[in-house]
Amino acid sequence: MNINVQSSTSFGLNPGDELNDLRMSDSARPLLDHVRKFITETVEPMQVEYYKLAAGHRDRWTFAPGQLEVLEVAKNKAKAEGLWNFFLPDAETGDGLNNLDYAYIAAELGKAPLASETMNCSAPDTGNMEVLERVGTPEQKEKWLKPLLNGEIRSAYVMTEPGVASSDAKNVATRAELVGDEWVINGEKYYISGAGDPRCKIMIVMVKTSPDAPASKQQSQILVPMDTPGVEILGPMHVFGHDHAPRGHMHMKFTNVRVPKENILLGEGRGFEISQVRLGPGRIHHCMRTIGKAERALDLMVERGMSREAFGRKLAHLGGNLEHISRARIEIEAMRLMVLKAAKAMDVLGNREARVWVSMVKAMVPEKTCKIIDQAIQIHGATGISQWTPLAEMYTDVRHLRFADGPDEVHHMVVGRNEVNNR
Amino acid sequence: MNINVQSSTSFGLNPGDELNDLRMSDSARPLLDHVRKFITETVEPMQVEYYKLAAGHRDRWTFAPGQLEVLEVAKNKAKAEGLWNFFLPDAETGDGLNNLDYAYIAAELGKAPLASETMNCSAPDTGNMEVLERVGTPEQKEKWLKPLLNGEIRSAYVMTEPGVASSDAKNVATRAELVGDEWVINGEKYYISGAGDPRCKIMIVMVKTSPDAPASKQQSQILVPMDTPGVEILGPMHVFGHDHAPRGHMHMKFTNVRVPKENILLGEGRGFEISQVRLGPGRIHHCMRTIGKAERALDLMVERGMSREAFGRKLAHLGGNLEHISRARIEIEAMRLMVLKAAKAMDVLGNREARVWVSMVKAMVPEKTCKIIDQAIQIHGATGISQWTPLAEMYTDVRHLRFADGPDEVHHMVVGRNEVNNR
Amino acid sequence: MNINVQSSTSFGLNPGDELNDLRMSDSARPLLDHVRKFITETVEPMQVEYYKLAAGHRDRWTFAPGQLEVLEVAKNKAKAEGLWNFFLPDAETGDGLNNLDYAYIAAELGKAPLASETMNCSAPDTGNMEVLERVGTPEQKEKWLKPLLNGEIRSAYVMTEPGVASSDAKNVATRAELVGDEWVINGEKYYISGAGDPRCKIMIVMVKTSPDAPASKQQSQILVPMDTPGVEILGPMHVFGHDHAPRGHMHMKFTNVRVPKENILLGEGRGFEISQVRLGPGRIHHCMRTIGKAERALDLMVERGMSREAFGRKLAHLGGNLEHISRARIEIEAMRLMVLKAAKAMDVLGNREARVWVSMVKAMVPEKTCKIIDQAIQIHGATGISQWTPLAEMYTDVRHLRFADGPDEVHHMVVGRNEVNNR
Amino acid sequence: MNINVQSSTSFGLNPGDELNDLRMSDSARPLLDHVRKFITETVEPMQVEYYKLAAGHRDRWTFAPGQLEVLEVAKNKAKAEGLWNFFLPDAETGDGLNNLDYAYIAAELGKAPLASETMNCSAPDTGNMEVLERVGTPEQKEKWLKPLLNGEIRSAYVMTEPGVASSDAKNVATRAELVGDEWVINGEKYYISGAGDPRCKIMIVMVKTSPDAPASKQQSQILVPMDTPGVEILGPMHVFGHDHAPRGHMHMKFTNVRVPKENILLGEGRGFEISQVRLGPGRIHHCMRTIGKAERALDLMVERGMSREAFGRKLAHLGGNLEHISRARIEIEAMRLMVLKAAKAMDVLGNREARVWVSMVKAMVPEKTCKIIDQAIQIHGATGISQWTPLAEMYTDVRHLRFADGPDEVHHMVVGRNEVNNR
Repeated sequence: MNINVQSSTSFGLNPGDELNDLRMSDSARPLLDHVRKFITETVEPMQVEYYKLAAGHRDRWTFAPGQLEVLEVAKNKAKAEGLWNFFLPDAETGDGLNNLDYAYIAAELGKAPLASETMNCSAPDTGNMEVLERVGTPEQKEKWLKPLLNGEIRSAYVMTEPGVASSDAKNVATRAELVGDEWVINGEKYYISGAGDPRCKIMIVMVKTSPDAPASKQQSQILVPMDTPGVEILGPMHVFGHDHAPRGHMHMKFTNVRVPKENILLGEGRGFEISQVRLGPGRIHHCMRTIGKAERALDLMVERGMSREAFGRKLAHLGGNLEHISRARIEIEAMRLMVLKAAKAMDVLGNREARVWVSMVKAMVPEKTCKIIDQAIQIHGATGISQWTPLAEMYTDVRHLRFADGPDEVHHMVVGRNEVNNR
Repeated sequence: MNINVQSSTSFGLNPGDELNDLRMSDSARPLLDHVRKFITETVEPMQVEYYKLAAGHRDRWTFAPGQLEVLEVAKNKAKAEGLWNFFLPDAETGDGLNNLDYAYIAAELGKAPLASETMNCSAPDTGNMEVLERVGTPEQKEKWLKPLLNGEIRSAYVMTEPGVASSDAKNVATRAELVGDEWVINGEKYYISGAGDPRCKIMIVMVKTSPDAPASKQQSQILVPMDTPGVEILGPMHVFGHDHAPRGHMHMKFTNVRVPKENILLGEGRGFEISQVRLGPGRIHHCMRTIGKAERALDLMVERGMSREAFGRKLAHLGGNLEHISRARIEIEAMRLMVLKAAKAMDVLGNREARVWVSMVKAMVPEKTCKIIDQAIQIHGATGISQWTPLAEMYTDVRHLRFADGPDEVHHMVVGRNEVNNR
Repeated sequence: MNINVQSSTSFGLNPGDELNDLRMSDSARPLLDHVRKFITETVEPMQVEYYKLAAGHRDRWTFAPGQLEVLEVAKNKAKAEGLWNFFLPDAETGDGLNNLDYAYIAAELGKAPLASETMNCSAPDTGNMEVLERVGTPEQKEKWLKPLLNGEIRSAYVMTEPGVASSDAKNVATRAELVGDEWVINGEKYYISGAGDPRCKIMIVMVKTSPDAPASKQQSQILVPMDTPGVEILGPMHVFGHDHAPRGHMHMKFTNVRVPKENILLGEGRGFEISQVRLGPGRIHHCMRTIGKAERALDLMVERGMSREAFGRKLAHLGGNLEHISRARIEIEAMRLMVLKAAKAMDVLGNREARVWVSMVKAMVPEKTCKIIDQAIQIHGATGISQWTPLAEMYTDVRHLRFADGPDEVHHMVVGRNEVNNR
Repeated sequence: MNINVQSSTSFGLNPGDELNDLRMSDSARPLLDHVRKFITETVEPMQVEYYKLAAGHRDRWTFAPGQLEVLEVAKNKAKAEGLWNFFLPDAETGDGLNNLDYAYIAAELGKAPLASETMNCSAPDTGNMEVLERVGTPEQKEKWLKPLLNGEIRSAYVMTEPGVASSDAKNVATRAELVGDEWVINGEKYYISGAGDPRCKIMIVMVKTSPDAPASKQQSQILVPMDTPGVEILGPMHVFGHDHAPRGHMHMKFTNVRVPKENILLGEGRGFEISQVRLGPGRIHHCMRTIGKAERALDLMVERGMSREAFGRKLAHLGGNLEHISRARIEIEAMRLMVLKAAKAMDVLGNREARVWVSMVKAMVPEKTCKIIDQAIQIHGATGISQWTPLAEMYTDVRHLRFADGPDEVHHMVVGRNEVNNR
């Protein structure tokens, strides 16, 4: 892991530097307003219908009749209004949202579950499109990027393995061997989000191609169509008992899966290099959405605290509750500033130089948000873990984030090493 | 709340006192060995069959054909071997297990989900039987205690309400009014564990009978048969998304439910008094089972830590993991000693005098155990929240305990007030 | 306490707002560079001589011969270079540093103990001058502000009382009664920083003048010359055993102290109003200096961690140390952004509207910094609490800050109330 | 480090075992009562006089005239009453206090600063006497143990070094080389408690004798009289600014210090073996005294909380204070039970087998006590860090304990390794 990137002395020591300007740009502001309006006027009403259809549907592992249709109507509306693929800078001109501006918009997207998908800005498709856009061949772009950009298909990113500590990416054990003109892939993967979705047609799979190369050159990323023989979904993995049907977090097996030699991305042994492309912005996006959840939890904590009484006082004024509320507010503001600064660092320094910032916020935000949600739960009593508030589901989602895209411990290792190596 | 009971100077300051002898009694030891043997030889094989039947059953809100039958076989075997109702001291002689001995046995019962029920020692029946035994009339005992003691029926305890902060028991809003010779009950309750079980025939319901009496004399507890007209189950409450079918934690409504005047327990306005009977031992039992879960989580943490490697070292030796393991061990031993001392305090001082000890362990054990399980989850990565380990379910169960039988905050209030009032 | 000032919805929700621009202004940059250069070239060499003189001096409660002279030389140099009183905007034009720019400079001032005093920017004189400048009469300004601005005398701020919880300012018990044309003051105060300094000539004293007025109108602030009969220094208060001679934190008694009626500031009953003037900027200044200490502690932690070995590894790579280092870095960056944002809020919204931000950082920074210093101590072993590192003194100073200018709890109360009242 | 001693399954799993009987023995009870009476009637009045003499004395690094005399009077009284050396079992019969009984008495000794010394039970003499008693030659006993047992001289234990991480004892760098019939010692040590006391006549010094032996056989312990040429006290080390004159924690240098060959204890390369003798009981003693401080801090917290008001309520009932009080009580009881169990484990299992228990309490007690004292400080405001309460000094003492006799981290390593190695 090469993290000898950023001297600790760069942290905040150039007071006039652009890095410290965390304002959204004027040019992006109309888009933010448009997105907000679109969510309120189009996405939210559509969601009501979408979930109503789902609720009446028996077979949890398919979409209900009509469900995808109402979504498509909204997607077409988004496309027509230009609210489409804005996560991705223009391929030729480079024009588009910078990370800071996108962070502000991501906070809005995080407020409605279907907002991102409606505007074709949802994970893991965003990361997959970004990778294809940057390193794909013209043929790969034609075949997979185009329908993804059109919102016609969806995709999966296939990284984590059940059998090894894949927090150390060097442990990846799924093998791809070149036999003639084909890669032959064997291995087991799990927590593959969205692989249960019938619209999911293509996967980017992290594999070990070159076991004898230096540690950071052994891995590659390969495009594997879902319908390739030998690709098998063993079943859904649960998140605290939920299976998130019908998209699911799938447990998958690859048995002698054969794809053409050309399906490799960028080239053999360049798997890690590609990871650098995708990880920064996706994590920022996750973090902003998580802060949105922390805000929601604080809202609920205050609301409950002011509407219930016990022992003669409102709950908010009982015991340490008001201090918990204060601490939640302080941590939320601190997290928001940190994520904005990390986004700005990516814009100003580039993803590579900014990676310590990204690790800082990835290690900080889900852990602190879990604590805030947990306290919101506590003030609700049993209602806090029931289906009557979103708190229990928010908790399990954010708890999941403490491993997804690298566990907290690995991000602390990145930040810690940067400190000790740069003196 | 009268907690001016125990001077803080009594805490551990009489070094030779019996309170400090935390040994199980010799006389109870054979029972412990018998229970252990019975769990291994009878309960565990039965559980395998029981859960296999459940797994193949479609209608989640009924038991599978044959499921209750295999349980009955084991119950009869327990009864025949004298492993039955041992939670309850003999009504006439007072002979039976003391709380300390029962605590050691409870730790064993906690290791197999069906062990308690097989030996007729499962909540909330135990508390309900204890109450009926102590304050029931001969008629109440004949009608409800007898079949409960025989394991023929089950019961529910109906306390918590969705509409108020019922951590302050004075807030109970469900009304019972005496109309002629009948109590007429109206109100809403939730998280009524076991009320979905078809064998559940009787409830003890906490109600407000005397709104004009002093605050601690307004409540009563009334026996209500499940099949009384006006009793309605609105649906199951979830615990982090689980509904725990078929027994469930039910949301219930009482509409003009009429029961005979004699169904009141002990008398009008004595609801709080009855609560004192039931709460001590049940909480000790919960705490010992929870410590069993903390032990299990630590086992899994160590096992995972020693079987996986990352960055060239076993996970257990990576970063702060070994310190987390040490801290878990220290907290587990401290919790165990505290619960044993609380049990001993109940034996030596009586439930009333020991209530500060009970509050201390109720505030301490679930919170610390949640942290231990959470760290065990973290070292497992995504597997920790999946269906492949018991950790996720253990977490949600123990998290629930931080409200059940009084939220942590109320127990800290009891302990804190005892400190400030006894000087 | 009127804190119904700022809607929670203002927190970060206007992404393009100037509030989010945390850059130092271009115009202030030359001053920052000048201050840095002056500290290195003038203050630091002077400090060496100053402390050498102190070390050889027996009478701890006086300055050593020559000590004040070397300081005066440096002060005159600062004045000549224009590095003087820059904490204070121009009385007529309002020109001067804004809070954000001053925050960046305060971080520099915090690095050398005598830097602030050399440039006449040291507490509590800064707050006192600010108050006199804004609310003083022409006579008061002539008599006290002028020599303070010239650095000829020093001053004290006399607020905290030993006999009451003065975190609730309404508890102030020191009485001032108008007798004829004079205020007659009686009471006891403590932790009066700098009152032992022979150059300290004037105090601003918080007193109760109007016990029958509404709670927030009972207090006044009065100018009391040090040499007024009845003013008595009872002795120095310690901070973890240190007396900070010769300036000290004094325990004082006021017995029938008489000052002219005109010595009241702004008017009777306006004591709280004056407090609003002084508290914001001072706290920001404290916080920036504290972050400087956190940085220094992290430096020492890393340095020690990389220069010592145990059990075959560098300390930094042993156990959880690297994670502690990472967490320290993350918290430091978060604190810095928060303090800068609070400073900016004062510039953009005004002190009154920004007070929730000030309370947020005052509650956040000293507590988190104490933890960071404590971990730096731990990695040093016994050396960490010895005279061989600055860590022990840094710890006690920052621990002190958790009460000074309002204890953490009161600031959390301000933040918490703002949350619950603004919905 | 051989810690493969105790299977984790032994933790609390034999419910009837003597290990769980934490009662003081009946036979030791009269001694406890006698010690209590002696402290009240003799030690405490003597202390008043002792400290009064010290207060009037200018030369901090000598005792005041008469100071040692009043102490001697009390010592003689203790000797006459048989309250003398009771920390040490009878050399021939083995009769004496077991660790559990001594733990209860240590709690009493901890309440008065001079109680231990008056009864000749003070560190580091106790450990040194224990070592001499067990491994000393007849000549060593005659020359040094006898006057120590008589209370005629005092001693020092010389272990920690400033130049290395001596938490890993293998790092000890002070060299002793055999030249002819003499050991020649060169090196630097620090934090040598009591070495400034004019009565301190003998040191036990940890040295490296055999750099080529296996790691655990390189160290030896050697007796060095204070007046040996080449022994030099460089000055006192501070503990948060205190020098603890006149006994001090000394920084020492050994330059070609020559002692006879026979001064080695037990034999060359057996330094670690001797450490096992001394460390268990001393740590238990420290822990019990520390719990006494936690109790005292809680007392002060409650007292302050009930005697001051702010914002219309007693401080104890404001914000989270009552919960802090509750948590302090819970942790104190848990710590006490753990220390008693560790003492019992030493009695039942022997020091070697019980060492995991000793590490558990050494890692647990000072850290948790620091937090309790810190909260007591916070509720006092500035008075909490002043000379008006014992809290500041208690804090610095207990903070020091987190390194003394092994830092927390090393004890967690012992506990953690025991967990992972015993499965």
